[in-house]
Amino acid sequence: MNNSIYIVVPLVMGVLAVGFAGYLANFVLRKDTGTPAMQKVADAIFKGAMAFLNRQYRTIGILAVAAGIIVGGVLALLGQGDQAARISLAWHTTIAFWVGALCSAISGYIGMYVAVKSNSRTASAATRSLGEALMVSLRGGAVSGFLVVALSLLGVSIIFTLYGGLSNPALAPSLIVGFGFGASFVALFAQLGGGIYTKAADVGADLVGKVEAGIPEDDPRNPAVIADLVGDNVGDCAGRGADLFESTAAENIGAMILGVALYVATKNIGWILFPLVVRAFGLIASALGLLYIRPSRVVEPDKAAGRDPGEIAMNQLNIGYFITCGVSIIGVFLASYLLLTGINARLFPSWVWFGLAGLTGILLSIAFVYITQYYTAGTWRPVREIAAATLTGPATTIITGVAVGFECTALPVLAISAALGLSYFLGSQVNLGTHGVISVGGIFGTAVATMGMLMSTAYILAMDTFGPITDNAGGITEMGGGAESVRDITDALDGVGNTTKALTKGYGIGSAALAAFLLFSAYLDVLYTLEHNNAAVYRVDLADLPVFIAALIGITLIFFFSALAIRAVGAAAKRMIEEVRRQFRENPKIMAENPADRVEPDYARCVDISTRGALRAMILPGVVAVATPIAVGIILGPQAEAGLLMVGTMGGIVMATFLNNGGGAWDNAKKYIEAGYLRVNKEGEMVDRLDTSGTVLGKKSDAHKAGVVGDTVGDPFKDTAGPSLHVLIKLLSTITLVLAPLYVYVNTIFPHP
Amino acid sequence: MNNSIYIVVPLVMGVLAVGFAGYLANFVLRKDTGTPAMQKVADAIFKGAMAFLNRQYRTIGILAVAAGIIVGGVLALLGQGDQAARISLAWHTTIAFWVGALCSAISGYIGMYVAVKSNSRTASAATRSLGEALMVSLRGGAVSGFLVVALSLLGVSIIFTLYGGLSNPALAPSLIVGFGFGASFVALFAQLGGGIYTKAADVGADLVGKVEAGIPEDDPRNPAVIADLVGDNVGDCAGRGADLFESTAAENIGAMILGVALYVATKNIGWILFPLVVRAFGLIASALGLLYIRPSRVVEPDKAAGRDPGEIAMNQLNIGYFITCGVSIIGVFLASYLLLTGINARLFPSWVWFGLAGLTGILLSIAFVYITQYYTAGTWRPVREIAAATLTGPATTIITGVAVGFECTALPVLAISAALGLSYFLGSQVNLGTHGVISVGGIFGTAVATMGMLMSTAYILAMDTFGPITDNAGGITEMGGGAESVRDITDALDGVGNTTKALTKGYGIGSAALAAFLLFSAYLDVLYTLEHNNAAVYRVDLADLPVFIAALIGITLIFFFSALAIRAVGAAAKRMIEEVRRQFRENPKIMAENPADRVEPDYARCVDISTRGALRAMILPGVVAVATPIAVGIILGPQAEAGLLMVGTMGGIVMATFLNNGGGAWDNAKKYIEAGYLRVNKEGEMVDRLDTSGTVLGKKSDAHKAGVVGDTVGDPFKDTAGPSLHVLIKLLSTITLVLAPLYVYVNTIFPHP
Repeated sequence: MNNSIYIVVPLVMGVLAVGFAGYLANFVLRKDTGTPAMQKVADAIFKGAMAFLNRQYRTIGILAVAAGIIVGGVLALLGQGDQAARISLAWHTTIAFWVGALCSAISGYIGMYVAVKSNSRTASAATRSLGEALMVSLRGGAVSGFLVVALSLLGVSIIFTLYGGLSNPALAPSLIVGFGFGASFVALFAQLGGGIYTKAADVGADLVGKVEAGIPEDDPRNPAVIADLVGDNVGDCAGRGADLFESTAAENIGAMILGVALYVATKNIGWILFPLVVRAFGLIASALGLLYIRPSRVVEPDKAAGRDPGEIAMNQLNIGYFITCGVSIIGVFLASYLLLTGINARLFPSWVWFGLAGLTGILLSIAFVYITQYYTAGTWRPVREIAAATLTGPATTIITGVAVGFECTALPVLAISAALGLSYFLGSQVNLGTHGVISVGGIFGTAVATMGMLMSTAYILAMDTFGPITDNAGGITEMGGGAESVRDITDALDGVGNTTKALTKGYGIGSAALAAFLLFSAYLDVLYTLEHNNAAVYRVDLADLPVFIAALIGITLIFFFSALAIRAVGAAAKRMIEEVRRQFRENPKIMAENPADRVEPDYARCVDISTRGALRAMILPGVVAVATPIAVGIILGPQAEAGLLMVGTMGGIVMATFLNNGGGAWDNAKKYIEAGYLRVNKEGEMVDRLDTSGTVLGKKSDAHKAGVVGDTVGDPFKDTAGPSLHVLIKLLSTITLVLAPLYVYVNTIFPHP
Repeated sequence: MNNSIYIVVPLVMGVLAVGFAGYLANFVLRKDTGTPAMQKVADAIFKGAMAFLNRQYRTIGILAVAAGIIVGGVLALLGQGDQAARISLAWHTTIAFWVGALCSAISGYIGMYVAVKSNSRTASAATRSLGEALMVSLRGGAVSGFLVVALSLLGVSIIFTLYGGLSNPALAPSLIVGFGFGASFVALFAQLGGGIYTKAADVGADLVGKVEAGIPEDDPRNPAVIADLVGDNVGDCAGRGADLFESTAAENIGAMILGVALYVATKNIGWILFPLVVRAFGLIASALGLLYIRPSRVVEPDKAAGRDPGEIAMNQLNIGYFITCGVSIIGVFLASYLLLTGINARLFPSWVWFGLAGLTGILLSIAFVYITQYYTAGTWRPVREIAAATLTGPATTIITGVAVGFECTALPVLAISAALGLSYFLGSQVNLGTHGVISVGGIFGTAVATMGMLMSTAYILAMDTFGPITDNAGGITEMGGGAESVRDITDALDGVGNTTKALTKGYGIGSAALAAFLLFSAYLDVLYTLEHNNAAVYRVDLADLPVFIAALIGITLIFFFSALAIRAVGAAAKRMIEEVRRQFRENPKIMAENPADRVEPDYARCVDISTRGALRAMILPGVVAVATPIAVGIILGPQAEAGLLMVGTMGGIVMATFLNNGGGAWDNAKKYIEAGYLRVNKEGEMVDRLDTSGTVLGKKSDAHKAGVVGDTVGDPFKDTAGPSLHVLIKLLSTITLVLAPLYVYVNTIFPHP
């Protein structure tokens, strides 16, 4: 049985997906770019974003070249096996590292290029109809989504093929782990830099503009407004794109490594190619979901009998997502049927069990969508609770938000635990034996579930990038002096964008959690092939003191890294606040009463301050993230490294959930107040938002000011530290996979207890 | 070699320590109680505190009676062994549980009684001299400190003796684990209830009084002021007393369980009695340290050439602490020499190795003192950084404080890791064999280090309870119209009290962390004696999916529990804020311009609101904390339970450190501003606190208001959730120790994978 031919599927689908992204880009770029006033704003955003990205990638590029050489050198000198084997591993890894880094950078770059070209087009489309605005913004976002997934898929497939994967399938996966490490490396700095940039600008713009000067969001008088709009792009588009690029790459490679053991048992290469084929099918599913959404299906506000346009748009996106999930379910069963053969199972053929495991992963992704909405949408208890707390000032707003954020870790973890347990159980029904206490079928079941969950990545990323595009479109409409009705449409889409951004983060952390166990097992597999103490290698025993200490350090790393990321924002934001205050002080004409007397503030200087601040600030957390696992692996040994990896990952999952959802809830509590939903009775207690006997406390009320403080605190949580933790936990995996030979080498020289 | 006679040491020393506490109480109570105005305030605090404590202990009593019966019933029906063995274990455990609960309650009750009697006496002593005020407040606190440690020591010693420990040493330790569970059970609710009470009152008093009405702290016009002063006692004295009561009890019992294996090997009961004897020596060391401090050694402010009186007092406390540590070092070597014999070791006799391990623990406690000071004292970077952030408003104050809190987890964890590794290494030099990968000598080394660290508990607790006494003394002086110079002395002592309170928390979490590994090993020892799958029992393998899931749930429990604790404060504080606002609104005479026209606010109503709020709010987090480990043990099995225990403990250590130190840093940043240290240049940037060219931004500035918001947010972190986590992580240990037979039973019926 030779399933090698199936490598064609990811290669062809990858190329087609790149073509599809080109088609979407062409569709968007052909649209008109709005009035000259709009174009002027859009142009400033474009220049700021590109200037940042150029400088950022230059810095990252230097770091990546150096890191690739160091990794290669370490593996050549201190790796395992004879000299030829060491040098082969070294150069394969270094090249793969660079290719991974490059693909990640390219997908981030092009995706953002199209995104910042889509914003004025969306603003212009919004002058015509909701349906067209939705379509332009979503397709603009989809360029990034499809490019990211396609490049990650093509990259892994091509490197695997070139490295002799088809002729020597057992060896190739461990040669390509460098690709995942390269992707993680770039993603870490891209997410950190983008996240710091966006929040420094946002915090600065909000605190001085909205709170102190009392001007609305996106007001052209605010010197930081362009930097803020640029930030939405570099943080959300480029950062999240790099994040999901590495997710798909790292988890894909991890699953392939697990497949090696099954290939050895069955001589069926299908077990190794399975992740690639499933993801190729996922691209088809995502494309179908995306193509479903067209203006003709959207009920325009004037015909909607008062229905909220945001609700109408969200509904369309949801239908598209369910179509993607439905097609994905067919795809995962089909791929299992085609590829996962050659082994007996209980009751049913093995493909049924693994298909069900894939279904589990897809269901988990849907569960995360609902859980995230519960904790971050204004219609439910958590956000209302924070809104009520704003009545007693900023302190209770923060206290309540932290409580909500801590609380909301429970449901996702229970969902992940259930999905992990179930997919493991389903996989273990296939007779594949055990490694230590690990059921080989069970662990492959969790890998299939992860792959199932990741099938919709392109669609999810399209929804995510849709967020900053609509956010920018709103800003451009406001600053370009668009009509009220147009602003209503962009506001509605912006609100939807906030929800979809939160969903993407939930999705990212859910898939990372599901993948944690498989990546960790892949690491143990790698240790096993390195012949490190094979009797005990499949054991990560917390009763072993070095493992215990490494685990404790793993959790602490999560806290420490979050501190560095948040502090970076605080520092950069402080400089921004000082600059905005300085401009208002030294140039009072910016705020002149009569619009005719006003002068334009110095936007470029604010953009520049954010850029420099972000690039400087991303270095320290990045270096800590890379250095800690290496130090632990060297000092405490390979098994302890597994402890750091696992417990660090657990801590990262929980902490990121706290940061993301807490921040999202504060944001939406503020929006709840701005929407006029906060009503109080005459004792000052909150009443139902529809209770017309209550007094509305809207913008500029003390409650709103407290809400803005909460939102501002949440900004670096949800847009800098939280997303950076996503990247960190996958970086921990790829770094351990790549450097496993080093840890084993040191352990051979100085055996650990 | 029969070392049974050494049981006399803890029994005699325990009785002597109770007598010493009586002597101290007599010393304090003989002092005069100040002016009638002071007495009136002190009386209101006393009544409020006692009313709360009575109602709280009634609630806890009912819960404890029920829990004891349930635990006994479960062990009798679903335990291990034949019926007689099950019933014997059941009633021994239930009785021990009740005795532990009762001892904990008694020590909390009497300690607080003396503490609230000491406050007006301290205020009165402050009218005479700094030295006398220091001595009265410290000795008032020491009553609680010595009672807590003595009752815990006597309780364990007596129960051990009565349960036949001297004739059948191998069995008794596992019969007395109920004592630790009872202590933890009471401690959990006492700390939760007290913590919620104190912070609801504090937040309420601060937000409406200081920020909205603009009146100073402890102003008699504030309706919540008495509730706030009561809260200092019920939270800090009673809560922390219960916390350290259970710490010493649980860790002592855990160490005795570890000693059983060594007793079996050597037939020397010294290994089991060692923890009791070391703690008895610790009482001597603490008493010597305490007795060193007398008024004659204190330089009075008028002769101190401008030295800060707080610095003078802190210096005295530090000297006393170093004396305690010095004597403890002698004690731990002596106890090792007398008791830890009968086994060969490398190079030196075994007592040298274990003595060094004890020394490691004592050094760790000193390291924690310095690390905590660095992160929470105003002279260092972290607090200054927060003070600088107040210049840009509450949002940046919060962001910076969270970053500092996250960051400050790193050093303590590194210190703990080093101490754990070192004491384990030292212990493993003694030839005691291994259990699985665990070196029996190594693990006993960590136990000796923990015991060494806990030797100074009585002294530390005296310093801790000193905090609320001086805080209250300040309030009484203020409300009783004392002179400025008197207030200077109480303010200085209050500032010292804030530092010592932070130190105690650091000490508590450090000892809990050091003990985590020993308690966990004790649990595995118990599983071993229950003959649960003995080939694998000493293995807690994260590669085993149920262990992995349980570990993930363990971390999540920490976050979820913190959410419930913080939310409880938010809810109770909200009611308090509304009440204070109502009183100001409905009774404007409270704030009348002319003092003669003023009427007294309704203090009692605020006290009542805090009491009812705290008692209602403590139930849910308490139940979650107790139910989660039981559910995991039953559903996922005994080994997974160990995973929950270990990773939950790690998460708890890190999270509690974040909450305690973050909260402490905010508190001191506010105090930094209030002390007039925040100076800015004309660009609005912070300059050195001694730079006289800078403008001081003091009380009532916007920066101060932002500082108050930070302090308020930190309150429930550092005084409710953080300390409750200390208790939670030890409760996880005691609950698993007590219910191990149940998990094994369920696992026998439904074997886990």
